[in-house]
Amino acid sequence: MIVVMNPGAKEKEIKKITDKLKEMGYGVHLSTGENRTVIGVIGQRREEAAQAMEAMPEVEQVVFITRPFKLAGREFHPEDTVIKIGKVTIGGPKLTIMAGPCAIENEEQLMQAAEAIKAGGAEVLRAGAFKPRTSPYAFQGLEKEGLEFLKDVRSKTGLLIVTEVMDQFTVQEVAECADIIQVGARNMQNYYLLRELGKIRKPVLLKRGLSATIEEWLMAAEYILSGGNFEVILCERGIRTFEPYTRNTLDLSAIPLVKQLSHLPIIVDPSHGTGLSGLVPAMSRAALAAGADGLLIEVHPNPQEALSDGPQSLTPGQFQSLINELKGVALSVGKLI
Amino acid sequence: MIVVMNPGAKEKEIKKITDKLKEMGYGVHLSTGENRTVIGVIGQRREEAAQAMEAMPEVEQVVFITRPFKLAGREFHPEDTVIKIGKVTIGGPKLTIMAGPCAIENEEQLMQAAEAIKAGGAEVLRAGAFKPRTSPYAFQGLEKEGLEFLKDVRSKTGLLIVTEVMDQFTVQEVAECADIIQVGARNMQNYYLLRELGKIRKPVLLKRGLSATIEEWLMAAEYILSGGNFEVILCERGIRTFEPYTRNTLDLSAIPLVKQLSHLPIIVDPSHGTGLSGLVPAMSRAALAAGADGLLIEVHPNPQEALSDGPQSLTPGQFQSLINELKGVALSVGKLI
Amino acid sequence: MIVVMNPGAKEKEIKKITDKLKEMGYGVHLSTGENRTVIGVIGQRREEAAQAMEAMPEVEQVVFITRPFKLAGREFHPEDTVIKIGKVTIGGPKLTIMAGPCAIENEEQLMQAAEAIKAGGAEVLRAGAFKPRTSPYAFQGLEKEGLEFLKDVRSKTGLLIVTEVMDQFTVQEVAECADIIQVGARNMQNYYLLRELGKIRKPVLLKRGLSATIEEWLMAAEYILSGGNFEVILCERGIRTFEPYTRNTLDLSAIPLVKQLSHLPIIVDPSHGTGLSGLVPAMSRAALAAGADGLLIEVHPNPQEALSDGPQSLTPGQFQSLINELKGVALSVGKLI
Amino acid sequence: MIVVMNPGAKEKEIKKITDKLKEMGYGVHLSTGENRTVIGVIGQRREEAAQAMEAMPEVEQVVFITRPFKLAGREFHPEDTVIKIGKVTIGGPKLTIMAGPCAIENEEQLMQAAEAIKAGGAEVLRAGAFKPRTSPYAFQGLEKEGLEFLKDVRSKTGLLIVTEVMDQFTVQEVAECADIIQVGARNMQNYYLLRELGKIRKPVLLKRGLSATIEEWLMAAEYILSGGNFEVILCERGIRTFEPYTRNTLDLSAIPLVKQLSHLPIIVDPSHGTGLSGLVPAMSRAALAAGADGLLIEVHPNPQEALSDGPQSLTPGQFQSLINELKGVALSVGKLI
Repeated sequence: MIVVMNPGAKEKEIKKITDKLKEMGYGVHLSTGENRTVIGVIGQRREEAAQAMEAMPEVEQVVFITRPFKLAGREFHPEDTVIKIGKVTIGGPKLTIMAGPCAIENEEQLMQAAEAIKAGGAEVLRAGAFKPRTSPYAFQGLEKEGLEFLKDVRSKTGLLIVTEVMDQFTVQEVAECADIIQVGARNMQNYYLLRELGKIRKPVLLKRGLSATIEEWLMAAEYILSGGNFEVILCERGIRTFEPYTRNTLDLSAIPLVKQLSHLPIIVDPSHGTGLSGLVPAMSRAALAAGADGLLIEVHPNPQEALSDGPQSLTPGQFQSLINELKGVALSVGKLI
Repeated sequence: MIVVMNPGAKEKEIKKITDKLKEMGYGVHLSTGENRTVIGVIGQRREEAAQAMEAMPEVEQVVFITRPFKLAGREFHPEDTVIKIGKVTIGGPKLTIMAGPCAIENEEQLMQAAEAIKAGGAEVLRAGAFKPRTSPYAFQGLEKEGLEFLKDVRSKTGLLIVTEVMDQFTVQEVAECADIIQVGARNMQNYYLLRELGKIRKPVLLKRGLSATIEEWLMAAEYILSGGNFEVILCERGIRTFEPYTRNTLDLSAIPLVKQLSHLPIIVDPSHGTGLSGLVPAMSRAALAAGADGLLIEVHPNPQEALSDGPQSLTPGQFQSLINELKGVALSVGKLI
Repeated sequence: MIVVMNPGAKEKEIKKITDKLKEMGYGVHLSTGENRTVIGVIGQRREEAAQAMEAMPEVEQVVFITRPFKLAGREFHPEDTVIKIGKVTIGGPKLTIMAGPCAIENEEQLMQAAEAIKAGGAEVLRAGAFKPRTSPYAFQGLEKEGLEFLKDVRSKTGLLIVTEVMDQFTVQEVAECADIIQVGARNMQNYYLLRELGKIRKPVLLKRGLSATIEEWLMAAEYILSGGNFEVILCERGIRTFEPYTRNTLDLSAIPLVKQLSHLPIIVDPSHGTGLSGLVPAMSRAALAAGADGLLIEVHPNPQEALSDGPQSLTPGQFQSLINELKGVALSVGKLI
Repeated sequence: MIVVMNPGAKEKEIKKITDKLKEMGYGVHLSTGENRTVIGVIGQRREEAAQAMEAMPEVEQVVFITRPFKLAGREFHPEDTVIKIGKVTIGGPKLTIMAGPCAIENEEQLMQAAEAIKAGGAEVLRAGAFKPRTSPYAFQGLEKEGLEFLKDVRSKTGLLIVTEVMDQFTVQEVAECADIIQVGARNMQNYYLLRELGKIRKPVLLKRGLSATIEEWLMAAEYILSGGNFEVILCERGIRTFEPYTRNTLDLSAIPLVKQLSHLPIIVDPSHGTGLSGLVPAMSRAALAAGADGLLIEVHPNPQEALSDGPQSLTPGQFQSLINELKGVALSVGKLI
């Protein structure tokens, strides 16, 4: 941490600040430039200390020089995290394809989707029982009934299940029927939920918030890791920008950046990331070429009848073609599907 | 709702779409232009119907022509909502000042803050027992102990209390010690929480999400209103933009816009909105001049010792000066403090 | 400037960097923390030096601790700049109202607008002869013919004129018929134009770019100031965000922030800032309450016939009412209209 | 165009609007729903007409149903535009690699860069003689001297040249030494420059503005096309968002979207798009996988000595490795390098 004093700060003022820092347990190192005195602060990064310094009238600004994430960061954990669930791995040379409908609508639709994505080559079925919706008048998901359908499909198809949990009190229930628990973009900073997920021993798929910086996203992962659950999969799903043609702006530069900063696997959701099924194939290819560890793709047996997100869903036929197309891209970056 | 057909759509394709719309219970009205056929769809707005249409390959786009909020909208509720709590009103000619520390740190700090803001002219004490924090290593609030302190301060000072609730399961508990229940920016789209708040009969202060459009914000209010709780206070607290000098960009144009679109009262939080105590006085004046029904201001007995958000907190002295300064601005727009 | 070495940097690597810095003419100051070595760099801020450092593989990041603007900054010029043009002042206790149509459409429309805004209390007429338009098929302004009309209106009404210049080669011509030369948002970083404006001795109204940070905006002013023209008026006109209900998001926090960072006057354009005439009164009041030195308001004798920006233009009657309303707000912050 | 009347509009008001539209030469088509009357407007899209309608107090909103770009759009020009310059094609199955330093610093640096990128497999040398810089104190380019160096390098190496033009008066001069003329992001809406480029017969590389929507970008291309120059190459180079870790957010979804909307070729600049040389390889691969027609990559013989943008420049060795890596990605999407 660096504390920058106001221009022309007097010795007495500098002493006040350095005394305060020492009182907080920090070492200090003065550096006096032409217009500013800068204090190098030695010791653990603490938000409280930084804010206290910023609130001092003698201080112009406080600059952090280390990243706030420790467990999620690559600095003290250089090797990649590879998550294993049965025969499926996430984060290694084999890419993971997760696919399925946005919402579970009924047993038949779910089974059709499951069979279609399995035939297409996916190993993980995604389908939501709890659906956060902007409008209170829109379909909100089948909730617990949907979880029952998921259990059934899992046992019949052998597919792994990823499904969203929306609050800390449902974590156990969702964990019983899911192999990977999804935290939605709106819940990325629901800290009680994150802490509860830190207590279980199941992989968590953590979607990036609509306007979350990469730092905030890794800090959300840090909540889960610091609780003792080390299996976090990051999922880029588009950020909010001024561009109106797409639902969100898919930030693929997050992939190599996360790979630099963190050891956690990262997958991409091109369906929510663009909102337009016509853009999903190109963005799926791009995501894999950028180094993503997998994809999360919306597939619906009949997008025109979907109760949510039809415009961004692929048909089973489109999904199958896409997977075939992706094999070459995967190979070109040394990966397998 | 307007359905725009692809350019050059054939009669058979148009018929397919109009048949589908009629099957959904809608009336249709064809309008054929030079390059496009446009279908005016008559009937209730429904997300599902719009998405189904957008998923049809024959359709270019779907355009809504009505706003999605009904209960929150002014169209069917032209008069302003004025909320009364004891002698305090929110939404009428008398402005409401809410002030206090970001977090409750201990009993003494809370009481000092309460006395300071009361002396300064505030009628509502804000202070957080549950604190959502970006870092798992930062101070997370006193939680239930904090609620106890709030009860005590309320009975001793006669101030009303506004405090944040973070999940649907704590609503009853918070409601017991708060006069107004705050939903934080990160929870604006926590729909289970919103639904629970629809069931109680206490005013809710609904902060705008960091990247929420005004439409999404009013739809979040709609969740609460549609549950039967009609006392929602909107709170603009800054949105996320590219500008790095301020913590957020306070969107004051939301005030006159919300006043046009909705009957609900709206207040402004210039402390989170800017993140810098030096900007709070100017933005408080501006908010009132723009027509806000009140302010939510961070005041801490000693910002340099605050466990959170010190840099944006006013001292009791600064708060007192600000209130004096605001009286003239209020008068100039026909309001009182 | 602070150079942060990679974690675990070796002595040899640190020496390489400090040698390089010394070779560039800088003093250095080492500060060794738990995980990082930080080099305090003493000497003039230079972009080239910072970029060279960032390109070194041994360096993690470079952090600036001083602001890049010198002449525009308040640090070495603490007193406010007040610009005088005849009897009009910009930046002092008397607020400056500039008003008029977006585009000059014909002589009659311009004269009607001029008389209306003069009657309403404005001292400066704004009207564009050169119009940057998103579509090549839209009205592009009367260009030189428009400048002639401006000269005529100036001599007949005694109003000062502010009008936009679009390239460096037209500066002299525009300067002959304008009292204040406007740089539009799209040209804020047209550096050849800025340099040419540094050579003349007329006030420049510098609009903030659609996605310009406050730092970039002040650096654009720095271009003009560094050429020797010290009369720059900043104009906040809204920034681009994700919010679709307004054309732009008016960033009023820029007012107190610019007042802290710079000595230059700042005015606000609520018409472009919102795009909706219905929001202009509230945002005009808010701008003055926040400390703006004046306003730039679109007024058209007949907005429904305007060739551009009708939806955001006030009628003469609405303008007159607004000015009356603003007098009280101005007084409440110790200013006059 | 659709004109939506205010809720509850009376017959007389509707007649006023339809009369006005007919007077403007439009056909009209009424559609009366439950709460709104909607007028389908038949005829050419015109901004002026839409704005006049929006300025009418009886009108709630105006909605466009066609895209504003005609010449740039694919609707009336379904086949891809392929640009040929000597043996180089842009837009066909062979990808185009453009590379070189941000700025020309001296003859030797330019020649070294040219040789390096030629050896690496690039066919087009990019290097700037005119450099737009945020700070007036930073290196601004060699200007005309730089153009001379480019001519020399072109004749010696046989490489094609792409270089930036900054105003309409230099177009001829730049055209003499460049094979492709670049319009920088800051000049994307410099309409005088665009119009001048419409008059010449050389390909133009049009960079997307920092906060330009895809529609605005295609409208900027429309300016050039409508002047008679049909050879426009679009270049995605990142947009401005809230994310601070990257210089810009590279919007790769623009690639498939532009391919749907327009027939023009599109290339990607991952160097400016990320600002970090470490992210350039991944984003180059992703751009090609998404369907880009080429890349524009910063390469500097010695990034640590670069006068601008060193941190985002590749070394010749890194560039060579990248091109090798890209060959497989290109093949996987049916293209060649």
